[in-house]
Amino acid sequence: MVPRQVPRWSAWIFQATPAWRRTTCALGASVGQQRWPRFPWRMCRPLAFRGCCSTVPRVPGVMLTSERYPVQRLPFSVVSEEDLAAFERIIPGRVITDPEELEVANVDWLKSVRGCSKVLLRPRTTEEVSCILRHCHQRNLAVNPQGGNTGLVGGSVPVFDEIILSTALMNQVISFHDVSGILVCQAGCVLEQLNHYVQERGFIMPLDLGAKGSCHIGGNVATNAGGMRFLRYGSLRGTVLGLEVVLADGTVLDCLTSLRKDNTGYDLKQLFIGSEGTLGVITAVSILCPPRPNAVNVAFLGCPGFAEVLQVFSTCKGMLGEILSAFEFMDAECMQLVMQHLHLTRPVRESPFYILVETSGSSADHDAEKLDGFLEQALGSGLVTDGTVGTDQNKVQALWALRERITEALSHDGYVFKYDISLPVERFYDLVIELRARLGPCTKHVVGYGHLGDGNLHLNVTAEAFSAALLAALEPYVYTWTATQQGSSLLLGHLQQPQGTLRVTVSMWETWLAPGRQPDERSLNVTDGGCAGSWVLSPHRGQRPGGHAEVSSYTA
Amino acid sequence: MVPRQVPRWSAWIFQATPAWRRTTCALGASVGQQRWPRFPWRMCRPLAFRGCCSTVPRVPGVMLTSERYPVQRLPFSVVSEEDLAAFERIIPGRVITDPEELEVANVDWLKSVRGCSKVLLRPRTTEEVSCILRHCHQRNLAVNPQGGNTGLVGGSVPVFDEIILSTALMNQVISFHDVSGILVCQAGCVLEQLNHYVQERGFIMPLDLGAKGSCHIGGNVATNAGGMRFLRYGSLRGTVLGLEVVLADGTVLDCLTSLRKDNTGYDLKQLFIGSEGTLGVITAVSILCPPRPNAVNVAFLGCPGFAEVLQVFSTCKGMLGEILSAFEFMDAECMQLVMQHLHLTRPVRESPFYILVETSGSSADHDAEKLDGFLEQALGSGLVTDGTVGTDQNKVQALWALRERITEALSHDGYVFKYDISLPVERFYDLVIELRARLGPCTKHVVGYGHLGDGNLHLNVTAEAFSAALLAALEPYVYTWTATQQGSSLLLGHLQQPQGTLRVTVSMWETWLAPGRQPDERSLNVTDGGCAGSWVLSPHRGQRPGGHAEVSSYTA
Repeated sequence: MVPRQVPRWSAWIFQATPAWRRTTCALGASVGQQRWPRFPWRMCRPLAFRGCCSTVPRVPGVMLTSERYPVQRLPFSVVSEEDLAAFERIIPGRVITDPEELEVANVDWLKSVRGCSKVLLRPRTTEEVSCILRHCHQRNLAVNPQGGNTGLVGGSVPVFDEIILSTALMNQVISFHDVSGILVCQAGCVLEQLNHYVQERGFIMPLDLGAKGSCHIGGNVATNAGGMRFLRYGSLRGTVLGLEVVLADGTVLDCLTSLRKDNTGYDLKQLFIGSEGTLGVITAVSILCPPRPNAVNVAFLGCPGFAEVLQVFSTCKGMLGEILSAFEFMDAECMQLVMQHLHLTRPVRESPFYILVETSGSSADHDAEKLDGFLEQALGSGLVTDGTVGTDQNKVQALWALRERITEALSHDGYVFKYDISLPVERFYDLVIELRARLGPCTKHVVGYGHLGDGNLHLNVTAEAFSAALLAALEPYVYTWTATQQGSSLLLGHLQQPQGTLRVTVSMWETWLAPGRQPDERSLNVTDGGCAGSWVLSPHRGQRPGGHAEVSSYTA
Repeated sequence: MVPRQVPRWSAWIFQATPAWRRTTCALGASVGQQRWPRFPWRMCRPLAFRGCCSTVPRVPGVMLTSERYPVQRLPFSVVSEEDLAAFERIIPGRVITDPEELEVANVDWLKSVRGCSKVLLRPRTTEEVSCILRHCHQRNLAVNPQGGNTGLVGGSVPVFDEIILSTALMNQVISFHDVSGILVCQAGCVLEQLNHYVQERGFIMPLDLGAKGSCHIGGNVATNAGGMRFLRYGSLRGTVLGLEVVLADGTVLDCLTSLRKDNTGYDLKQLFIGSEGTLGVITAVSILCPPRPNAVNVAFLGCPGFAEVLQVFSTCKGMLGEILSAFEFMDAECMQLVMQHLHLTRPVRESPFYILVETSGSSADHDAEKLDGFLEQALGSGLVTDGTVGTDQNKVQALWALRERITEALSHDGYVFKYDISLPVERFYDLVIELRARLGPCTKHVVGYGHLGDGNLHLNVTAEAFSAALLAALEPYVYTWTATQQGSSLLLGHLQQPQGTLRVTVSMWETWLAPGRQPDERSLNVTDGGCAGSWVLSPHRGQRPGGHAEVSSYTA
């Protein structure tokens, strides 16, 4: 049995210390009252239960992670009655042990992995998070922070019986500065609600995701989410100005500055951005919001080939310049899936590829003129074969839905193998083509879509059901292909290659523990069906194994 | 005698490993051949020497740092003949011991501090840097990395006899991708030369500084330079995609990815951005260059008061939106200084404040239309009393010179006390006004200018000569005032307060050594003329004391 790289996990949230200037404002009162505009099925899904861990009911079709994968529980303590009583003293009335409530928190959005946690905690403040983590640290209890539980790589749910630390009640805006656009809020604020909040004040959030209706800003930061606005507003590493984080032993680390430029000391908060909760629980975020654009246009285009998609991208950058705010692409199979499973309508003639171009600017007239010029050029040169433009909000949203709801459509198509890959744009689509040839008829669909603007390919393979043979055909092939192209990929937890040595550069954890050490090159030796190099990243944190690894080579 | 916080230092450099795809291209062959378009006086300054350290000549008027400040040399070894021989084996012909050459590298640009290093090393490659640092580490020799030596806070020169590790010969472009705009280069490339290089390929560097003609990209990154384009293109934390760094023991840390999004592992490179060389020597940089704008306009405006300056900034952001690329301000005294010392001409009527607004966009017509609308509004409402616009390159440069050459003008005015402060914009100028009242006639000028767009105030006080009494009136007053306003400031090395306790939050070094620890609140107890809490940040690195500290409170 292979000790397994478990999926990455998301983390985070919380509440102000008294020293902060507050304009406290609730964004949705509690989980029960929250709207889930883009993930409504979570609320209406009928839950049927079978037995599993002693108290946690089983969702049909979702195997326990510990049954599907031969992961080994680390020697953490088991939650006792005394622990529950201690939690009850810290957060009275917010210690959840009801199996039905736990069920939702134990299963990920894709229903691909499932833990069997027996307790869910809902702190409201940083102090409460600190007390909880201090207790868990002293008692050697494993903790799984959970934001909106919208992650697609199984990182937001327990593997075993980790305590689930939910940020759902940490949903307060702490302050907003309407000249600078700097928002300070608790980490459990839902992204879309924050966007509404700042929009009313003339700004927008610097990131936008399909999961915006449910995902928490703390989880966005902990996973360093990119999303649709990356092209225009850049990485969270630039827009996040400050963080408040609770470390595993309960220590509160205050890096919550709201200065645009702050060069005092090392920028320690950066370590927590994208660290997936392995270093601490993010409890508050200070983030710079750009001004709300006066005009937004979306063009949806049909394209005859991927070479043309790349040329359209270059043309677009040149002609739309500073008003280009998104450049997304999807292939014909993606379009088939959203039409088949979600009954959306294809707005242009059938094409091998589709492009969504968004502009955001301060002058509707100027933007329309630039967009017209670009479309004329793109259509005239044959790079684009058909197109439609939306300027009013309804049409803009309808066009965006075609791109944003691909994930949802895929989840209706069967078991989904998902890969989130950064690649040089020239080789962006080659992997999809090669995989189709390699996998043949044992799959339902092999699709590619994503943010061409930031080189981020979403590669998805659907099949009737999970299949070890298909997995073996996919991995480590996908990782080594990516490494060969000098791209980066996440190991998503279902590596199951029977032969060969996968060399990986393990995350920086060891470097952190021993300053000056280089990140390790480790052999993950799977020739004998076992991992020679364990890459448990956070054994000292009272947390669980997990984390990223960058594949650097593969030797069969 | 007070063990003193020595000035911060800059660092960095280098050369590709064979695995990198190169488009190797020299940007200026050597220090001797480099152009210094903005700092020409460094080349033509007549050097007169007096005795000092045994072999290093003395520049008139520049006291040795170790004489002016009661700093104590840490117990590092002294460079021996054997060391010189070892360096000569590593970098044959590039071990400089000539006193005249050393003189330039021992004194900072402002001629405010001076070391007495006896050896200057000029590596060309990362491997050479690694070998040098490994030797120094083993021999316990202190090292001072030096880029363009353009820093204004004395951080780029030795305090004592540290070995100067120059990046001047590490000036190769390693690769440039003309679709993505991703530049990979050695750390010693001069910013302006890089800008020319990418401009020829349709891009610009994402940062711009007055010192562009001399400063090195490695130094820009190590000091997390903001500069004129910060408002538009954001922080180096977002635009720097990767770094290669040599740690003090010679270990090469390769974080030189060129992916726009790379979430594998912790983003360790962020620790080196803005860490001032305290953690290692930056040897190569991967940076994202934005497309070159088709049209650039500069408006230079006169403004009746600082309240109006702030209102113009708001109006500007609203009306110019995505094409606004710089918003700089200077006060009337700054204008007097550039007119008096540099003989520049004031392009508008005399005013209490001046604003420089720059737009960069893809359409000259659209940009002109937006700018006209803004100017009409600003003049019509009385926020601005006079203005001029430059669209051709000569006029644009002439207008920018008024702002960029303030530092140079100040250096002609006498001894300069410099403070680089981040503040909430509302309180931005109050400190200048309060200081004028506080200091009275013992100063020549108290001036304020800077990047209003990113809340960065350059506060400068000039006097006939250095004066301990004036320093005592300035510090820690400036720091505590800043702390009270929740701003941040750098301690620039000349703290000399005879009474009181300055509480500081020391940089994260200790946290780095002991993960999980919060940054220390330390008492820098100066009641007895000595520091109770030493804040030597890098004792284990074979380097010298230094680094930032954020002032959090002051108790007299």
